[in-house]
Amino acid sequence: MKIIIVGASGTMGQYLTTILEKENHKIIKANRSSGDIQVDITSPESIEKMFKQAGKFDALISTAGPTFVGPWKNLSDQTFRTGIQGKMMGQINLVLIGQQYILPKGSFTLITGALTHEPQRYFANASAVNGAVEGFVRAAAIELENGIRINAVSPTVIEDSPQYFSHFPGEIPTTMKQLEFGFRKSLFGTVTGQIIIP
Amino acid sequence: MKIIIVGASGTMGQYLTTILEKENHKIIKANRSSGDIQVDITSPESIEKMFKQAGKFDALISTAGPTFVGPWKNLSDQTFRTGIQGKMMGQINLVLIGQQYILPKGSFTLITGALTHEPQRYFANASAVNGAVEGFVRAAAIELENGIRINAVSPTVIEDSPQYFSHFPGEIPTTMKQLEFGFRKSLFGTVTGQIIIP
Repeated sequence: MKIIIVGASGTMGQYLTTILEKENHKIIKANRSSGDIQVDITSPESIEKMFKQAGKFDALISTAGPTFVGPWKNLSDQTFRTGIQGKMMGQINLVLIGQQYILPKGSFTLITGALTHEPQRYFANASAVNGAVEGFVRAAAIELENGIRINAVSPTVIEDSPQYFSHFPGEIPTTMKQLEFGFRKSLFGTVTGQIIIP
Repeated sequence: MKIIIVGASGTMGQYLTTILEKENHKIIKANRSSGDIQVDITSPESIEKMFKQAGKFDALISTAGPTFVGPWKNLSDQTFRTGIQGKMMGQINLVLIGQQYILPKGSFTLITGALTHEPQRYFANASAVNGAVEGFVRAAAIELENGIRINAVSPTVIEDSPQYFSHFPGEIPTTMKQLEFGFRKSLFGTVTGQIIIP
């Protein structure tokens, strides 16, 4: 399979790249400032350019999603836009634009997170934009044509990102193996419109 | 109670206004172009102005939420913004700004809808922005101070809006009475962070 990984330089992206390359999938690494293709997901033009460079593909994985993290008192219309432009519209535009470039029976797998339903202090922006992406995934699944599927993977805090553990009291970290299996279900399975809790 | 109803001229808003005025609550009707105060919820400045005019209040109900409704092929970064500016950030800004004006132990009640989990053709924008508002409600509930509560009411298609029935095959319409009870639970109950399915 030819798989575009957006956010390939991150903790999850690197892990998935290594695993999938070992299985001889062709991975196109797309990052903001490194990898095979540079992409700024906050810009629809940059996303369009990425797909033109990448050519037809079988699957897209996104592990990219900037959001505003910080004290509630700093949350405003302006700071809220970090997550809207990033994790929300960044990922939604990957699908709205990418559907013109993906092969029939291809799949999109986006990233959300437990914060949708399990809020934590400082992360209201992520709770909202995760919820948006999850609503979009369910709706896109009934609209996408040519057998194209779409799912989201929704981990808790990631095992390999211990720097975040203290922000997620009570959340059992998602192991890298669980995360991998979540993405496998979307990539190689038949499900669509699902929020996969790995 | 002094209650601001944003979207008081709509089907839900009118119904709730009539019911609550009969019970001697003071209702401030806020609409785009009529009512006691005019407000454009897509503008944070207009929202701020509304709260300054209204003065301290006990509860805010929002039944307002423009979204893009139309064929999937017309869904783009640009058309998606209708719901982001309207039903999503419009309602989120009512809370982020309104928290400075609401009385201690006050409540915010926003509107989402079954589309969050039950998508229908043409309504992907609403599914996404409903999901965003619901994620926000759960997160805001753990952040708001002074005993201020926040919930969302999530109806299916509204009994008194039969013009939409054909777009919601399989959805049993929410009666006006059920809707009223959903809002009552948030207004007069003690729950917070809930998505109330009336």
